[in-house]
Amino acid sequence: MSDDARILIAEMGARARAAARVLAAAPTAVKAAALRGAAAAIRADGHVILAANARDLERARDLSAAMRDRLALSPDRVEGAAAAVAAVAALPDPVGAVIDRSVRPNGLALARVRVPIGVVGIVYESRPNVTADAGALCLMAGNAAILRGGSEAAESNRAIHAAFARGIAAAGLPADAVQLVPIADRAMVGAMLAADDVLDLVIPRGGKGLVARVRAEARVPVLAHLDGNNHVYVHADADPAMARAVVLDAKLRRTGVCGAMETLLIDRDYPEPARLVEALQAAGCEVRGDPGEASIGEMVVPATAADWDTEYLDAICAVKLVDGLDEAVAHVARHGSGHTDAIVAADAGVAERFLGAVDSAIVLWNASTQFADGGEFGLGAEIGIATGRLHARGPVALEGLTTYKWVGRGSGQVRG
Amino acid sequence: MSDDARILIAEMGARARAAARVLAAAPTAVKAAALRGAAAAIRADGHVILAANARDLERARDLSAAMRDRLALSPDRVEGAAAAVAAVAALPDPVGAVIDRSVRPNGLALARVRVPIGVVGIVYESRPNVTADAGALCLMAGNAAILRGGSEAAESNRAIHAAFARGIAAAGLPADAVQLVPIADRAMVGAMLAADDVLDLVIPRGGKGLVARVRAEARVPVLAHLDGNNHVYVHADADPAMARAVVLDAKLRRTGVCGAMETLLIDRDYPEPARLVEALQAAGCEVRGDPGEASIGEMVVPATAADWDTEYLDAICAVKLVDGLDEAVAHVARHGSGHTDAIVAADAGVAERFLGAVDSAIVLWNASTQFADGGEFGLGAEIGIATGRLHARGPVALEGLTTYKWVGRGSGQVRG
Repeated sequence: MSDDARILIAEMGARARAAARVLAAAPTAVKAAALRGAAAAIRADGHVILAANARDLERARDLSAAMRDRLALSPDRVEGAAAAVAAVAALPDPVGAVIDRSVRPNGLALARVRVPIGVVGIVYESRPNVTADAGALCLMAGNAAILRGGSEAAESNRAIHAAFARGIAAAGLPADAVQLVPIADRAMVGAMLAADDVLDLVIPRGGKGLVARVRAEARVPVLAHLDGNNHVYVHADADPAMARAVVLDAKLRRTGVCGAMETLLIDRDYPEPARLVEALQAAGCEVRGDPGEASIGEMVVPATAADWDTEYLDAICAVKLVDGLDEAVAHVARHGSGHTDAIVAADAGVAERFLGAVDSAIVLWNASTQFADGGEFGLGAEIGIATGRLHARGPVALEGLTTYKWVGRGSGQVRG
Repeated sequence: MSDDARILIAEMGARARAAARVLAAAPTAVKAAALRGAAAAIRADGHVILAANARDLERARDLSAAMRDRLALSPDRVEGAAAAVAAVAALPDPVGAVIDRSVRPNGLALARVRVPIGVVGIVYESRPNVTADAGALCLMAGNAAILRGGSEAAESNRAIHAAFARGIAAAGLPADAVQLVPIADRAMVGAMLAADDVLDLVIPRGGKGLVARVRAEARVPVLAHLDGNNHVYVHADADPAMARAVVLDAKLRRTGVCGAMETLLIDRDYPEPARLVEALQAAGCEVRGDPGEASIGEMVVPATAADWDTEYLDAICAVKLVDGLDEAVAHVARHGSGHTDAIVAADAGVAERFLGAVDSAIVLWNASTQFADGGEFGLGAEIGIATGRLHARGPVALEGLTTYKWVGRGSGQVRG
């Protein structure tokens, strides 16, 4: 990595660290006012932001339609970004919350108290609204943020960031609380990932390539979202109408989201496997499976071994018949990605066995995997869905952006 | 790293993963019985363990006296190791505990439930009792463990591990739940640190060199304990008798522990700074400070800039006079290591400002920094004191060896 990149990140980091100290002590009302100010500034700068976005889109003519769509802003999308920032201002402040308390036999009173993590790096692609919503979540949790957006969205990000920073500064918080890396050079990402003296945490938001690079290179702890190779297991006793509704929603409500079902496991004793396959096909979904299965073999596209490990993010579904709960659980353990897996079953005992045995960030009984979302879980927002095992799992919002410290209050205790 | 090491760790990892599935579902009573069995087996094998230790000590004749002391076992130390394992069996089981619950407006009932982390690697040096106590903590939290002790303790570790594994197997748990890397080759450590598909977490226990190597090389998440460059700030209004007692205990109860005070900050308005220095010196402590200070300058060994950043782990103390709380907080922010820092003060408002502003894993008011210990904090044990910011901070015991999953129970909800 270049020295220039390293020096710039170190300088931004020093300013972020100073801002983080102010933020850690900032009252909830001040942080909320700052975010409302940021939302208002984004609204006020709508035309500036849209003009900047038009220049980004002009430069991005060679990108795919999907990437251009993620990059493109509209008056509605700008309003959505502002509204998201204002919504974060209304969330409960996690900082200062007491996790637990105890009084030791010697009279020392202990409490674990939530505190901000410190300085958080966000590395993201395409969608310029991340500039606003990641900044808002970090700030409300008392963290300074260093944002590094994709070069394709450089002007849009700069315009949104300028409004955001003006809004929070007007509320008396340091503008350095949320900084945008000014140079759209890939070396900056490398410098961030190496800077374990600058960043306490880095969160990648983007496609698999970005997340893989961050995970491979980072010396800084990473909160990352990997694949969502999610399963729905339809147990033998599942209500067919419920199974059909859950399966169709899990696969097809939106096929491109990380909570989408990718493999359907149908119990061999479930009475209507062909009906489930038919329903998916009738809704426009390609179904892949074992052509040797008597009940569904003639309906499916032959599956290969790779299908069980594939996150299609498309209207394609792998289907497998399994001999009961244990085989379903074993299949999920072998092929799942630890994101979200569901069972449809009438029997509570069966369901609880599945919920206990499947070790994913989210396990669901009689509900669609597409609920995997911070908003749906009542968190008010999300910075991502963590598929690692430490610190935070599943949807991560304000609490996941905090840590804790032990506070002990004594009266002169010595250990002696 | 050698292919042999990589292959061996992968094989041990596959067995550990299978064992972890069994452990994750094991009832508390079974885990506790297994640990009581392990404790009994260690006691029964006392002579075998001591004989193995004698062979290690024979090979270790060239090591320093301190290292030989850490390595040496006695009947008391073997009994201590067995008792520690039995004590873990009596701790509350964190697995299955519900962190919080909610019911969404659509009726979906959500809970966050504690689950084991999975497979934990422990890399340690010298003290053979770590083989027993780290294995016990991992097992009680439902994790499989892969232990890699130092080559100097190879025979002692093997003997303790053999007893431990026999004890847990007798209770019906897989012996692979706690495995000991059989080859005392440094390449094995490298293979563990690289194996992010095998280990979910690695915990180094040992000196600075080991921890630094683990942090630098690990592709696996690390829960590490770095320096304890701890401070006591004696505020102007501190009760002199309390200040003296806390300072002496914090520095001198045991000088080699990570919770020992290394720098004493005395408020310039505190009436008796020289008395505190005198008390430390009378107790055999070298005191380093600014010879230009009127009140204490003639008493102290001149300090250099490096003293403020030094963890002495010895009967040496840096002393600095500060102009009030803000300078004390700023000094800790600049030179502290985020481990444990304390204030001695009568005024609660002053103390709360210190507790809020100092961002260390443990902050204390009117209590000795030497309370930084899982046992003293009521955790029953500790696998270490974490000085990182994510997942767990301060003393880490069973809860810190768990993570959580989201469990949702519905009645056919779809996102629609």
